[in-house]
Order: sequence, then C-alpha cells, then structure tokens
Amino acid sequence: MIIVMHNDATEAQIDAVVKRVREQGLDVNISRGTERTVIGAIGDERRLDQELIESLPGVEQALHIVKPYKIVAREWHKADTVIDIRGIPLGGRQVQVISGPCSVETPEQMALSAAAVKAAGCRLMRGGAFKPRTSPYTFQGAGFDGLDMFRKAADKENLPIVTELMDVRQLQTFMDYKVDVIQIGTRNMQNFDLLKEVGKVNVPVILKRGMSATVSEWLMAAEYIAAGGNHDIIFCERGIRTFETAYRNVLDVTAIPVLKKETHLPVIVDPSHAGGKAWMVAALSRAAVAAGADGLLVEMHPNPCEAWCDADQALNPGELIKLMGELRGIASVIGREIL
Amino acid sequence: MIIVMHNDATEAQIDAVVKRVREQGLDVNISRGTERTVIGAIGDERRLDQELIESLPGVEQALHIVKPYKIVAREWHKADTVIDIRGIPLGGRQVQVISGPCSVETPEQMALSAAAVKAAGCRLMRGGAFKPRTSPYTFQGAGFDGLDMFRKAADKENLPIVTELMDVRQLQTFMDYKVDVIQIGTRNMQNFDLLKEVGKVNVPVILKRGMSATVSEWLMAAEYIAAGGNHDIIFCERGIRTFETAYRNVLDVTAIPVLKKETHLPVIVDPSHAGGKAWMVAALSRAAVAAGADGLLVEMHPNPCEAWCDADQALNPGELIKLMGELRGIASVIGREIL
Amino acid sequence: MIIVMHNDATEAQIDAVVKRVREQGLDVNISRGTERTVIGAIGDERRLDQELIESLPGVEQALHIVKPYKIVAREWHKADTVIDIRGIPLGGRQVQVISGPCSVETPEQMALSAAAVKAAGCRLMRGGAFKPRTSPYTFQGAGFDGLDMFRKAADKENLPIVTELMDVRQLQTFMDYKVDVIQIGTRNMQNFDLLKEVGKVNVPVILKRGMSATVSEWLMAAEYIAAGGNHDIIFCERGIRTFETAYRNVLDVTAIPVLKKETHLPVIVDPSHAGGKAWMVAALSRAAVAAGADGLLVEMHPNPCEAWCDADQALNPGELIKLMGELRGIASVIGREIL
Amino acid sequence: MIIVMHNDATEAQIDAVVKRVREQGLDVNISRGTERTVIGAIGDERRLDQELIESLPGVEQALHIVKPYKIVAREWHKADTVIDIRGIPLGGRQVQVISGPCSVETPEQMALSAAAVKAAGCRLMRGGAFKPRTSPYTFQGAGFDGLDMFRKAADKENLPIVTELMDVRQLQTFMDYKVDVIQIGTRNMQNFDLLKEVGKVNVPVILKRGMSATVSEWLMAAEYIAAGGNHDIIFCERGIRTFETAYRNVLDVTAIPVLKKETHLPVIVDPSHAGGKAWMVAALSRAAVAAGADGLLVEMHPNPCEAWCDADQALNPGELIKLMGELRGIASVIGREIL
Repeated sequence: MIIVMHNDATEAQIDAVVKRVREQGLDVNISRGTERTVIGAIGDERRLDQELIESLPGVEQALHIVKPYKIVAREWHKADTVIDIRGIPLGGRQVQVISGPCSVETPEQMALSAAAVKAAGCRLMRGGAFKPRTSPYTFQGAGFDGLDMFRKAADKENLPIVTELMDVRQLQTFMDYKVDVIQIGTRNMQNFDLLKEVGKVNVPVILKRGMSATVSEWLMAAEYIAAGGNHDIIFCERGIRTFETAYRNVLDVTAIPVLKKETHLPVIVDPSHAGGKAWMVAALSRAAVAAGADGLLVEMHPNPCEAWCDADQALNPGELIKLMGELRGIASVIGREIL
Repeated sequence: MIIVMHNDATEAQIDAVVKRVREQGLDVNISRGTERTVIGAIGDERRLDQELIESLPGVEQALHIVKPYKIVAREWHKADTVIDIRGIPLGGRQVQVISGPCSVETPEQMALSAAAVKAAGCRLMRGGAFKPRTSPYTFQGAGFDGLDMFRKAADKENLPIVTELMDVRQLQTFMDYKVDVIQIGTRNMQNFDLLKEVGKVNVPVILKRGMSATVSEWLMAAEYIAAGGNHDIIFCERGIRTFETAYRNVLDVTAIPVLKKETHLPVIVDPSHAGGKAWMVAALSRAAVAAGADGLLVEMHPNPCEAWCDADQALNPGELIKLMGELRGIASVIGREIL
Repeated sequence: MIIVMHNDATEAQIDAVVKRVREQGLDVNISRGTERTVIGAIGDERRLDQELIESLPGVEQALHIVKPYKIVAREWHKADTVIDIRGIPLGGRQVQVISGPCSVETPEQMALSAAAVKAAGCRLMRGGAFKPRTSPYTFQGAGFDGLDMFRKAADKENLPIVTELMDVRQLQTFMDYKVDVIQIGTRNMQNFDLLKEVGKVNVPVILKRGMSATVSEWLMAAEYIAAGGNHDIIFCERGIRTFETAYRNVLDVTAIPVLKKETHLPVIVDPSHAGGKAWMVAALSRAAVAAGADGLLVEMHPNPCEAWCDADQALNPGELIKLMGELRGIASVIGREIL
Repeated sequence: MIIVMHNDATEAQIDAVVKRVREQGLDVNISRGTERTVIGAIGDERRLDQELIESLPGVEQALHIVKPYKIVAREWHKADTVIDIRGIPLGGRQVQVISGPCSVETPEQMALSAAAVKAAGCRLMRGGAFKPRTSPYTFQGAGFDGLDMFRKAADKENLPIVTELMDVRQLQTFMDYKVDVIQIGTRNMQNFDLLKEVGKVNVPVILKRGMSATVSEWLMAAEYIAAGGNHDIIFCERGIRTFETAYRNVLDVTAIPVLKKETHLPVIVDPSHAGGKAWMVAALSRAAVAAGADGLLVEMHPNPCEAWCDADQALNPGELIKLMGELRGIASVIGREIL
C-alpha cells in the first residue's frame, strides 16, 4: 500500500501512520519528495484497511497496489480455465452459444425451443423458471413447474441446462433437478449470501455483471464464490447502465479483453439483454466473438411475438441459424471454432 | 398506452395492433397524423406488455402513460404518510436523525455510541450486525451476537433500532430481537424475494436506493413490499454511481423533491455513504434537510479512527452535536422541526 | 406530438392546450382514457416547443413522436451514403482503416508514419496538429508547422489526410493546406459555431461523439453541419464515459447498428481513444468491424514509447499489419472488404 | 509520481524506468515489496507524462500524487478569493443570487425582468443573447440585438449583467458592451481556444461544469483561463448527466464542499438547468446554499408560459421573492448573509 501524506503533515503524524502499519506486521519505506511524503507499506497489504488508514490525521490518500482478488486472478493462475459442462468445454478454443427462451412457458414451447436450439448447432440451452421482474404485477416465472418442463424438454435433445437462481431457499431444488449451470442474475451480483451458498456446491455458475458494477467489483463477487470452494465460474457481460437511453444497456465489449487479462476464467456475453432488441442481436453477437468472448447467451423463441416476457429481444429459429453461420466464420478468423 | 406506428406501417399492421389491444379488453383511439399513425389504448393499460406490443410488425414504439406503481403513489393517496416507530413519528413535520456506528463491534463501543446518539438529541439508532462487503476477506459483521449487543445498548437509552437485513433466512431472528426498523441495503434493492418477505411482516422498512436505480425502479421495489401488505416503507437516498470518482457517490438531492411529489411515503437521506468522507457529512446533511428530507441516517462512532469499517466516514460525538444544531436551524426556516 | 394531461386536469386546461396547438397551425385528436386525457397534435410537430407545452397548466408531459433530425435521417434517405475522399469510398462495401500518430511531432516521425500506414494497406492517414489537452501545461500540438509536415509526409505516399479542427479562426488555413477530411473532436461535438462553419465548406467532416452525448444529440450535431449545406458527414464512435474506471472509456459498440438504422451516413470507430491502451486495440477493432462499422481510426506510431502524446495507446507498425490481416478476414465473413 | 512495476518486471525494465525518470531531472526512491517493486519519482512530477511512463515495458501503472492544477488550487492559496463585480462581492460572506430570463426576447420582457430581479433583492442579472440549442432549427438567441436590449434594461436598474459567450469572434463585442461577467457554458467547458481567449481579458468568468466533467477536469479548465492571466473565475455547478432520466440532470451537491476544499475560487450553482423544472428550483436552491454555495444562477421570467426557451424551468417573479426569503434564513443559519 502507498500512503500519501498531506503537504503539511507533521512528523508526529507520519510517525503515527508508520506505527499503525508496523502494528499490522508490515514494514515501511519512506520517500520524502519535494511536495509530499509517501509511505510505502511492505508486506501483505490485504491486512491494511484503506478507509482506516485514510482516517488517520495527515493522510491524503491510501492506495492498494495489489489487486484484492486472488483465486480468480490470472496473476496467480496463468493458464485459461476450461470448465467441463457434461462433456462440453467452456473457456478453451471452442466458442459455445447457449440459446433458448427468456422464460419457460409451456411444455410445447420448451419442446420447440429445445429442438430449435439443437438444430442451430448450439450445445447448451437457457431458460428462466424464476424471473426477476421490475414490477410485482407482471409474470414472475413458472417456478418449479417451469424447472420440470425445462429439464424434460432439454433432456429429450440431450442439452445441458442453464437457469437462474434468485433465492437461497431454492438451491436444493436446483440440485435435485440437476441444473447443469446456475445463473446468478445482474441484480444479485452482490447478493453476498447467495454467492456464498453457490460457492459451496459443485455446479458451474454463470455470474452476470451487475448493471453498474465495475470490473473490480465483479471479480470480487466471483471471489466470494471461489472462496467457498467452487472455482467453476463463468463471467457474463450483459450490458451496463449509462446515460444513453436509446437502447436498454450498453454492451461493454471492452470488458472482454480486460477480463481475459485479469482472470483465467471464461467470459461470455449476453447480447440479448444488452441491446434489448432482436434486430441488434446479430451485430452484438459478432462483436462479442470478434473481441474474444468464450461464449454467448442468446435468447431465441419459437414465436417471439407470443413470448410472455421480453418479446422484442428474442431471435426466431431461422435468425439463430443464420447468426450461427456468421459466428463460425468470425471464430475461425481468430483461431477459434464453433462446432 | 400510446402506440406509435412506423411511417411506412401498413393498414394490415395497424389492424393487427388494434386487434391485440382489444383482445386485452381495452378500447382504441386512432389518430392519423401527417407522418405517423398513433394508436391510443383506452382502459387499464397495465394489461398491455410494452415489450410484446413493440415486437409486433409496424410498431415503432409503445409508451405507458400511467405510472406502474399504485400503492406507493401519491396520485392515489394525497396525504403524507407518517410512520410511527415506537411513538416516534417519521414523515410528518418533525425531521428525524438516526445515528450510530457503521457496524456493531463490542458492547463498550455500542454503549458509548448509544449514549452519544442520545446526547446529541437523535431519537433512533443505527448499527450494522450483518455487513455487505465488497471483499469476502474483510470483516463481515458481528452477526447475531452483534444484534444482541445492539439491542442491549439501545434499550438502555430507550432508542428504537435500525439494522440491515441481507438474507431471508435471518428475518425470524430479526423479529425475535424486535428490530424496530429493518433496513434493505442498496445491493438488495432489487432482491425481489427479500422484498416479498419483508412485505409480509409488520415492521417499518427503510429501502435504500440501488446505486444505479432509477426513481421509477425504486418506487417499483417499494411496491413489491407494499403489495405484500406492509405499507410502512421509508425511502433512503444514499448517493448514486456516476462517472465522478473524486467522491464515492453523488448524493442525488433532486430525488428528494421528485420522490415527495411521486409518493406519500417518507424520504430520508444517508449523507455518510453518499460522500464517503466525514468532512463532507455536515454539508450534505444540511442540503438534504433544506431540500425537504424527512430524516437522515448519519454514521457516528465514539472513536472513528478505530472503527472496524468505513472509518473515514463517521462523525465523532462532538461533530454530531454541532451538526444537530445547524439542522435545527434549517428545519425551522422551512417550517419543520427537530426536537 | 402527444400531450398527456394530469389526471385532475380541468376542461379549461384541456381547451387552453388545444388552443395553443391550433395557434401553431396543427390540428388535434383528443382521446379521453380512463385515467388520463391525451391530446394528439397533428401536423408539423417541429413547430411545437416541448418545454413550452409542458409549462402549460394541467400538462403532465409532452412527447415528440417524430425524430428531430431530417437531412441525416435514413427515414428520408434510404440508401447508404458513400463519401468520396479523393477517390477512396467511405460508407459502401469497403471498410477503410485510417491510421497514423496521435500528434504530429517531426518530419522524420511523419515520414516513417506515412510509410508504415501505406505498408499496412491503410488508404488514409490521421495525425493531430492541434491537440485538445486537459492541462494547459502539456504539449498543445505542433500547430500550423505540424500541418505542413503532415501534408508533405502524406503527399509523398499519396495518402489523403484527416486532422482535427478546434477553432473557427483556423478553418481557412485548413482549406489552404487542402486538408482532405476535417475532424471535429469529442469536446467540440456541441460547439455549435464550429459546426456551422464546417457546414459551409466542401470538405468531408468526421464528427466524433461527445463523451457523454446521446445518439440523438449526436445526430442533431450532424444536422447542424448538414443544415449549412455540407452533407459529407462521418460519425465516429470513440467510447463513452461511464462509471467504469478500469479503462478510459467504454466503446459503445451498440451505437453502430443503431446509427446504421437511424442515418444513411457512414459510421466509423476510434478503438484507440476508446480503450486508451494499445493492448486493447486489436480486440476493439475486430468488434467494431464485426458490428458493421464502415471504418476505423487507429493510432499507430513508429516508436510508441517515444510518442509525445498518448504513448500507451498507439500500435507499432508491426501490430498494425497483423491487425489489418484479421480485419480483412472479418470483413469478408460479413460480405464486406478491406483492399 | 509513483510507478508500480508488474510482479514479473525484470531488473533491466526497472533500470530503464529509473533512467527515464532521471533524464527528466527527478530523483528516485525504490521500494522492493513482497509482490511489487514501486518506484517513487522525487521532484517536479509535472515533467513526467503518465501515459508515456505507462507505455514503458514492465510498468503496471503510474500515478501522479500532486494535483495537476496550481493557480486555482487552495493548496497554494489558502484564503477564499472574493471577486468584485462592480462593487458586489462574490465569494465572501455574502451569498449572491443572479437571476433573469433564459433568453433575451424583447425590450419589454427585459425591462419587466430587470425590475423583478431588483424587486426580489437580487444584485446581478442573467440573460442569454446567444443560445446553445440542441437543434439547428430552434431559436438561437437574439444575438447582438439581444445584448443591446439586455444592457439597456439592466442599466436602468443598475444591475451588472452575466451572459454567455460561445464564439471567440464575439469576444470584442462583449467587451464593447461592457458585459460584467462572461459565462462559459457547459458545452464549452473544454473548448480550450475559447478558454484561452477569456483568460486574456479583465472580466470575471463563470465557468459552468461540463455535463459529464469530473471535478478535476473542471479545475483544469479553470487553470486554462488562469494561466492566461485572468484569475477572476467562478465555478458553476449545473447538474451532471447520469443514468437517471426522471429529471434533466442530477445536481451534484457534493461538488460544492469538494470544490471549496480544492480551490479558493467562488462556487455557485444553477438549480434551474440542473432540475429542468420550475417546481424543483426552490428545493435545489435551498440545498445549494445549505451546502455552502457562494451564489446561485436562477432563471426567472415575467411570464414563464410565454418564454421562448426553457419555459418550464423559469420561476415567476412571485416565486423568486418567496425563494429569496427562505434563502436568507438558511444563509443566516450557517453564518452567511443575503442582503
């Protein structure tokens, strides 16, 4: 940690800071510049609380120089992590497109969806049984019945399933249904009790970025899961909130190379929620793969105009097939592949 | 709902939209302008899903004209709601300052804090037993032991207590300890399962604004609580996330008059988390009361430099007393009072 | 324009609004719903001022339904505009990569840069003679001497030049040097007097997006140029300002398909300023082309570590060559080409 | 400057950085920690370019520790600067309310406005002759005729005038009309050529904050003016752009105490543009004064519903009188005064 003192800090204030640092078992290096004295704390700086140091008299600012995340950091784990989802690799050379409807509606809709996902060449299926909705008066998801419909439809096509968990009390049922990948939604990225619980199970987790979470906070949220023992974590960029209102969110494509540099874990993108409109999905999907994403989460509905939720952002089966063709081309240009 | 058609929408597309609206039991008014045809849906527009209508061919945009919140809306409940917290009114002419430490640490710290809160003339006390921390490796709060320490210290001074609930599984214990006001933190503003649970109990709830939540989303989050039967909801503005990094958050003082116009429920402000630094707290507190806030949530610690959490944002007891004096003056200028 | 009245608006208030609309020469359609009366203004709604209508008693909100831009709008000009820059087409099937250093430094540096731009297969060259710098104490650009160096170096390789204009008083000199494309920087996107001046000349203009400009404001800024008679306008997305500070800006890749839908004019991307770091440039460039950009503005320096400005964001000549190869592959996947 | 090396930086890379720092005339302090080596550059760090240092091999990040602004910084000029505007002090104990219409329309409107400003007890008058408008098709201001009307109306009431300058070519005419305070608008905060020009004249300048400018950028923009010799600079907070769209901007009240700490220059607030609605102005004005603002810029129109510009945000004369009364009360609570 670097501690910058005010230009009028006294010797007694400097001594007090040094004493405080040493009490935590770290050593110090003092650099007296022309305008400021800077104290470098040498040792495990995680023991020093930035806010506490900044509250000491005479301190202008305190800066951590080591990243606060450890298990998820590439600094300590150089090679890419490849997560195995019932035999399907995520995070390696292959790019995986996970597709399916926003929400589980009926057995027929799920059967048609699963068949269309399979036909397009996607190898995993998504669908929501529990839906986080802004209004308490709108459709909240089909619940456990939906989970049952989803499991059956996906099993028929032999597709692993990805679905969102919103409440710690539902985790056991997710395990009973053998959900293959648990999704933590954007509104729960810092629901720390939920993160701790999924950290204890042996199922891969997709961790969506909070709508205004920094990359650093996102990595720390993953660290919560990892600290519990579950290291199979997949980051999912889904658009961030900005001043722009012409589209629902701004897909933060820059986060892809930044995350690939900071962490060894896979990074996927949800172009459907990012843009919020079906006509944007192809352009955003191509951009995400071109920027280095390890996979996509694409909404597709057998009949979008009849969808019970987010009707205007789902592709239809034909559009998904066309998109998969373009993505195969782009993957191959950058040395990757989509089966 | 107003439905604007594309300038090249066909008659068949217009007819299809009209048919869809009528199927939901609403009537239509068609206005054929020089550049666009506009369809007005007349009746209970909450039955119409904006995204579904926008997915219909030929539709450019669909706009709700009625606000989506009902129970919390001033439109349907003109008078200010005054919430009674063990005899202390919140939301009326009196302005209430709730004070106390960021986190519960020891019985001694809590006893000193409670005495200082009382001495400054504050009538409610805050303190965190469960702490949402960005890092899994930092102090996570004293837990149920902390709740016990808090209850005992506050009881000695006869102060009602305000503390944060993070996990649905802890609600019963909060009830057992007779927590007087349950706080829902910024990261849980859209933890819908948690909102539903606190909607079922008979305890006032402080609902902090999500760090990038719009006022509309915030009102809808309150509507989740209200829909469960609990109408004793207090909005708490605590700063929003913006591009500015010179301070932790931007206190959104504009939200105060806007909320007072949109809802009949009380609105308080947390100047401590908003600014993130103790030296800003007085200015922000005065601004909040001047703008019409019904109360404040101010961090105070008997010895800030030793605090285990957010050390640099707590006032000391003397600073709190001085602030209370200024706030009394401002309250009186605008026809309110602080006892 | 749609005018929504308050739910308690009186008949007299409705009549006053109707009268005001009719005074401007528009007709009205009144729709009396169950909760609100809505007045539709029929005719040229540009004659109605939204703020003035909203100031009338009883009005809740007024909404324009027609876009405020006309000349730049695709609605009135369906085909893509292809701008001819000394024989090089921008906005058609070809994707153009414009490259060169951040700032003009010396004749040698410019000669090396021009040769490297040419060698990589780029067909236009960029370089700044006047630099907008946050601090008055840093290098402000080589000025007119820089323009001279740039013109000479580019002429030797027969490359048209792109350079930034910051001050209306310099426009004549830009014309004298036959600058091929005038760039309006992000800080000047709403410098309306400057926009009006470049609207009067016969030189293509690159209009960079303001760092927090909405797409609508950006289109209106272009409309300022177009209204003066100059229709050769190229939009350049260069990253927007958000809450994220891990990188300089967030490249708004969503803006690409949105702009291509809203306007017939070309859209290019500046991946160098967006990310702010050379190691991000390749990923962002690929994403931009994959999303449909008509061109790129890429910083390259013969020796980045010696650059006088933005040293950490420039590619070196070898990196530019490698990038061009990847971009050719991606362009071809989506039916476009880079010569 | 603090330079943090990568954890795998080589000795040769460290030596190269040290050499570079020494070449600029600074000395170094090397601190070898357990995870990172940190190089402290000792001396005038303004000579070191952060981006250039960060482009050197092995460097993780470089941080300036001294603020980049000098003339405007309180660090070097402890006492508050009081600016004298024709005998009226701004920046001292008195709080000044500057009022008047958004734009100059007619001699009658200006005469009524000036009389109302005077009657309310305001001591300076505002009004726009040149208006920055988003659309080229809306009223652009009355121009030099407007300046003439404004000067005459204000002179009759002996009020100094504040008006916006948008174009360097108009500065001489502003001088001819003896404009008392030149306003630089939000869109021109980083129009560096305009800043340099107003830096050369002997007239106080109100520098509005850019709509997404950081406090640091804003201080640097003021430094541009100050570096030219004009030190009579007044900062004006006018709301920032955020994700929230329920109101036009978010008044950043936190910026007031932060600026008062960072600079000795006066800080005023424009509550009218911040909120965008007349009914919010009183609450925001009270908050600004309570937070420590040295003045306000409040829009008032003799007949708001007929205003040619921003009709919905102007107070009427009666509302201004009422507001002045409240502000006098608040000023007195915090030891200040409004005459």
